[in-house]
Amino acid sequence: MAQGKKILLSGIQPSGRPHIGNYFGAMKQFVEMQRDHDCFFMIADYHALNTIQDAGALQKGIIDLAIDYLAVGLDPKKSVIFKQSDVSEHTELAWIFDAITTMPFLARAHAFKDAEAKNKEISVGLFNYPMLMAADILLYDTDIVPVGADQKQHVEITRDTAEKFNRIFGKTFNLPEAKILPTVAVVPGIDGRKMSKSYGNTVPLFAEDEEIEKLVMSIVTDSSGGIPKNVYEIHKLFRSEDDLASLYQSKEGKYKELKEKLTHDIKAFIRPLRERRKAIANDTDAVRNILKDGGTRAKEKASAKMEEVREKVGVKLY
Amino acid sequence: MAQGKKILLSGIQPSGRPHIGNYFGAMKQFVEMQRDHDCFFMIADYHALNTIQDAGALQKGIIDLAIDYLAVGLDPKKSVIFKQSDVSEHTELAWIFDAITTMPFLARAHAFKDAEAKNKEISVGLFNYPMLMAADILLYDTDIVPVGADQKQHVEITRDTAEKFNRIFGKTFNLPEAKILPTVAVVPGIDGRKMSKSYGNTVPLFAEDEEIEKLVMSIVTDSSGGIPKNVYEIHKLFRSEDDLASLYQSKEGKYKELKEKLTHDIKAFIRPLRERRKAIANDTDAVRNILKDGGTRAKEKASAKMEEVREKVGVKLY
Repeated sequence: MAQGKKILLSGIQPSGRPHIGNYFGAMKQFVEMQRDHDCFFMIADYHALNTIQDAGALQKGIIDLAIDYLAVGLDPKKSVIFKQSDVSEHTELAWIFDAITTMPFLARAHAFKDAEAKNKEISVGLFNYPMLMAADILLYDTDIVPVGADQKQHVEITRDTAEKFNRIFGKTFNLPEAKILPTVAVVPGIDGRKMSKSYGNTVPLFAEDEEIEKLVMSIVTDSSGGIPKNVYEIHKLFRSEDDLASLYQSKEGKYKELKEKLTHDIKAFIRPLRERRKAIANDTDAVRNILKDGGTRAKEKASAKMEEVREKVGVKLY
Repeated sequence: MAQGKKILLSGIQPSGRPHIGNYFGAMKQFVEMQRDHDCFFMIADYHALNTIQDAGALQKGIIDLAIDYLAVGLDPKKSVIFKQSDVSEHTELAWIFDAITTMPFLARAHAFKDAEAKNKEISVGLFNYPMLMAADILLYDTDIVPVGADQKQHVEITRDTAEKFNRIFGKTFNLPEAKILPTVAVVPGIDGRKMSKSYGNTVPLFAEDEEIEKLVMSIVTDSSGGIPKNVYEIHKLFRSEDDLASLYQSKEGKYKELKEKLTHDIKAFIRPLRERRKAIANDTDAVRNILKDGGTRAKEKASAKMEEVREKVGVKLY
């Protein structure tokens, strides 16, 4: 796309409340990247079906995720915000990729190997999801896929799949680049480990004041009396290191005061986001309309690409 | 469907010239079953993609198969004749089935075990095709799936998948029954083994007279001088056993004469089919229109079913 902006696609699974690690690790950067890119933000509901097999929960998860992203600043006027299941071309292209991909190639995917190591009874969808992900990305002539370092392999599998298709059927797909989001790995949780839902150490992005107070007070500190590292590391997200340097030097050892200051800063940061979220959540019909409209726009682009694919593989007769 | 005819679906892969074993084993019965059933005859082009990765070959295979079936008597006024790739709901539902199916369950499929035993580098599509086949069948509320005895497992996997979906998300799918086609296994080839493309022992259904002569003359016979079993077994397809009993007794040991008689009978049988096929093949635009119209009718039914599925799994928001 030399003549225009680069195309960016990100797929997000509905998986409960986002936390400040998600925000600083990804969402904030998505919001910023809207300026210089043509962005597709996809709610990956057909991926989520591998883990959420409850209609009410999935439906709620989709709507909640849309509200979350609108609240932080994804803008349907700038970007295409849509859900995967509105564009049947995703699963259709995934099937075509199934046909050209070997079992041993797919069995090398990290996520499959991890899941299989834990539990032999994993679903075919968890094994096969890199093919759906390749379709998600390649349908939109995506240039850039922002991912955490641990998800880089997805983009590599996508590139390999695009190359294989191009080799067999002729040049059809653009090769996307992974854009590694640098801070994903380093947002610490309240116990000092990486902030992650699975560790139960998160600060929810839209938390109420009381919840913020409790969480900050429970940040694990050692009793050495110096600078409380875990408090400091989270505080860094909300204030410049210059500000923090003088603050933490003057309050050395005074954990409670430092935590109160952090609580204050987190509250000040979260309040406008939370209020915006509540306003959006008051009108879910408007949210549905945004998704519906995004689905129409995504489908337009994806179906044009699929016409090309159908012709290339030989199933297009009219 | 207590109030109407039972629904029958058969999926057929484009795989070259049909032979008289295909005709007596399946096609003839499909033609007859049109009387008492609502039939869907699907050209399984997305299944074929696992083995045919050449656009020209696949396109030709689809058209040829449509012509073959029209020539033997599938009737677009009575039945829905369509190609799988015109109904994106097939691959969409297959993905949903991927999500609820475990790897060990699918790895038990015969075709996968056979393929894997021969070659480790089989495609994901060959592993995953029972899920697409389940979608093919279940999208149309199919009651009956006519199959050879060796394909009975496909229908069993389909039933298991339907039951699992119904259990998780509530009653949605009808459980289809396999209808085993009794003659599939017993049509003998010119070498006495089962007639099969992979043995190279077939008599093509639309063969020219000269080809028929050569093939019949090459039927393997022993030199015991009695009744030539392989000639007799093929002859049975074209004449009643009463007719044949007197003929073969009076001509015992006279292999050449018996083969000439068989040649005559096959020619008389094939000639009108071959001529009908040529007439149809003269107007491939009409064939395309039949498929296109069939695709529209199939899509109508499949998309209504998928709406129900989408609601059941929780991805339908509007």
